[in-house]
Amino acid sequence: MPDGISLEELQLAARNHGMPLEALRFDVTPVGLHYLLTHYDIPDVDAEAWRLEVDGLVERPLTLSLDDVRARPAVEAAVTMECAGNGRATIEPHVVSQPWLLEAVGTARWRGTPVAGMLEEAGVREGAVEVLFTGLDRGVEGGEEQDYARSLPLEEVHAGDAILAYEVNGMPLPPQHGFPLRLVVPGWYGMTSVKWLGRITVLDVPFGGYQQSHSYRLRQHEDEEGVSLSRIQLRSLMIPPGIPEFLTRSRVVQAGTCRLEGRAWSGGAEVASVEVSSDGGVTWALAELGDDALGRWAWRSWSFAWEATPGEHQLCSRAIAFDGSAQPLDAPWNVGGYANNAVQRIPVTVTG
Amino acid sequence: MPDGISLEELQLAARNHGMPLEALRFDVTPVGLHYLLTHYDIPDVDAEAWRLEVDGLVERPLTLSLDDVRARPAVEAAVTMECAGNGRATIEPHVVSQPWLLEAVGTARWRGTPVAGMLEEAGVREGAVEVLFTGLDRGVEGGEEQDYARSLPLEEVHAGDAILAYEVNGMPLPPQHGFPLRLVVPGWYGMTSVKWLGRITVLDVPFGGYQQSHSYRLRQHEDEEGVSLSRIQLRSLMIPPGIPEFLTRSRVVQAGTCRLEGRAWSGGAEVASVEVSSDGGVTWALAELGDDALGRWAWRSWSFAWEATPGEHQLCSRAIAFDGSAQPLDAPWNVGGYANNAVQRIPVTVTG
Repeated sequence: MPDGISLEELQLAARNHGMPLEALRFDVTPVGLHYLLTHYDIPDVDAEAWRLEVDGLVERPLTLSLDDVRARPAVEAAVTMECAGNGRATIEPHVVSQPWLLEAVGTARWRGTPVAGMLEEAGVREGAVEVLFTGLDRGVEGGEEQDYARSLPLEEVHAGDAILAYEVNGMPLPPQHGFPLRLVVPGWYGMTSVKWLGRITVLDVPFGGYQQSHSYRLRQHEDEEGVSLSRIQLRSLMIPPGIPEFLTRSRVVQAGTCRLEGRAWSGGAEVASVEVSSDGGVTWALAELGDDALGRWAWRSWSFAWEATPGEHQLCSRAIAFDGSAQPLDAPWNVGGYANNAVQRIPVTVTG
Repeated sequence: MPDGISLEELQLAARNHGMPLEALRFDVTPVGLHYLLTHYDIPDVDAEAWRLEVDGLVERPLTLSLDDVRARPAVEAAVTMECAGNGRATIEPHVVSQPWLLEAVGTARWRGTPVAGMLEEAGVREGAVEVLFTGLDRGVEGGEEQDYARSLPLEEVHAGDAILAYEVNGMPLPPQHGFPLRLVVPGWYGMTSVKWLGRITVLDVPFGGYQQSHSYRLRQHEDEEGVSLSRIQLRSLMIPPGIPEFLTRSRVVQAGTCRLEGRAWSGGAEVASVEVSSDGGVTWALAELGDDALGRWAWRSWSFAWEATPGEHQLCSRAIAFDGSAQPLDAPWNVGGYANNAVQRIPVTVTG
C-alpha cells in the first residue's frame, strides 16, 4: 500500500465516483451508483444547438441533430463498463493518477443507434484505417490543451457492437454520462466510450493523440511505445458480506451459513467459472454461476454458501475464462497502473 | 495540507460521492451528481414488505406501508444539503474521517409528507422532548454495533419543514438516497436527514446514541461534551472557471472578461450578499446575487464579471449573511473537522 494518497489524487477521488460494492447486487446499476470518471469538466451542452459531425474519409459527411440520431434504427444493450485504472491504488510501486480501489465499474442499459450503420450511411472511403471519436470535454494533459478523443480500428467498428447512446436505464443521458450523446463500446475499458460526443472522423492514419499515444498503454518504462489497452480483463468481485465498521470498512459476519454473492465479467474470453476462497487464496471452491440473461456484454452473478466459523478469514473470488486464463493473485506492475485484475481480498471477522 | 490520505480514508472517498463543482451550474443537482455519504452499506430494502413504525410517547402508534405514506398530504421543496464534514480534508491538524474537500453538497427537489402532520396523527404525549429517526442501515462505529439513528428536538419537528420524502427530482428515491423513504430536514447538515427510514420514536429523554453523543459535535478535545451540530453554516462556492489540467485540476483561463458563477447558501441567517476576490482574499468586490426562486432552503446563484489579466491569480468567494456574519478566511479547528466554511481558493493561470 502507498504511504499516503496526495492532495492531487484526493481531488480526483472526490469528484470521480466509484460504485459502492454492495451495489453489485443490482443486475443493472441504478443511475448515480455506476462508476464515473470525468477527465476534464462535465461540459455544458445545449441539446438544441448540438450537432454530431461525421467527417474525414467518407463519401457523404453528415451533420445530425439529436432528433436525427434518435430517428435512426435503435438498439439496446446491457453493458458492464470498467475503468482501465480500476485497482490502481493498491499497485506497488505507487502510480499517481485517479486512485481507484475496486469500485470503478457498473452495468447500464444503453440505448442508441449502431455506429456501424451510421458509418455505412456516410460511406467509408478506401484507405480508411481508424475512426476517431471526439468529445466536447476540453482540458490540459501532458502540457497539451486538448479535446478528449479516442479512436477505434475500423474493423472493430464494423465487426463490433458499438452504440451511439442517448439513453441509459430508460432515461435520457444525465449530464455526467455524456449528454446528449456518447459512444459505448461493449467489452472495452471505459476510456474508449467517449462521452459528450461532438465528432466522428474517419482517418487514413492511426490517431496519435494524447489519450491514445501516451495514456492507456501497457508499458514497463515511460519511454517505451507499449501496447494500447482495449478489452476489459477478466474479473470477479464480491459484495462485502455482513456489516461494516464505518472508518475501516472491516466486516463483521455472524457464524453460520453466509451466502456470498458477486459478479464476474470479461471483455475477452467469456467467464467459464468463479471460485471462492476463505483462506486468502490458498484453497478454492467452485461458486454457482448465474445465467447470461443480461447478454454477452454484461456481468454474470455468482453465489456461494459459505459456512462461516468464528475467527478471522480472508475472502477472495476469482473468475476463470473459457480460454483457461484466471485472475492472478498479484497484479503485474505497469507505468499507468492499468488493467489490474488481481483477486479482491476481503478480511472478515466472524462472531459466534 | 496533510502529507497524505490513508488507505482507510481513500476507501471512504472512493465509495462516497462528491458533487463535481462544475455541477454548481444546475439549479437542481441531477441525480447522480448530488453528494452522497453512506455511513454503513446501502441496505437492500423490499418496498412491499417495508413498513414505517411510529412509536414511543404517542397516543396512537402507527404502522404505515409506502402506499399509506404516499396517500398522505404531499409537499415538495428544493433543499440544499451539505455534509457537516465538508471541507474536512484541508483542516490542520489533519482529522481522519471521510476526506471531503468542498464537494459534499447538492440541491434536490424532495417530495413527501410533512413529519409534523404524521406526529399530529400519532398524537404526541406529554413529556415528549425529542423525536428519534432510525434507519435500516447497520454497522459498527466506536466499537458499537448500531442502526444509524439521529434525533431532533420536538420543537424543531413542530416548527420546521422536515419531510418524509419518497421522491427526489420527480423520481422514486434511488437506493443510495434512502429508498423507499427518508427524512429531509431543510437547513440542517446532512447527517440529520436519516435515509432508509424504518422507525420514528417519540422520546421523553434526549437521545444518547453514538451519532448524537459522539459524532457530529463541535469539540476542542475528545473528552469534552461539546455542542451538537445542527444548521448549515453560511457558505459560497464558485464553479472553477476555464479548463482543468487532468491531474492537478489547476485552471487555465483566457484573458478578457470571464463570468464567474457560483452558489451561496445558509441554514441560519439568510445570505445577504456574495463577494469575490481575485487576489486571494485581500480585496473584495460585490457579486450579483440571483433571486430566491428555489425557495428558502435552497442555494442562490451569484455571478461576477471578472476582467482576467494574464498571470497567476487566486479566486475566492465569500457569502455574507443578514446577521452580519461572513465566511472566514481560515477555519477554526475542531475534533471532528466539522462545519469548516472557510472561503474556497481557486488558483488560476490566465493566458493572453
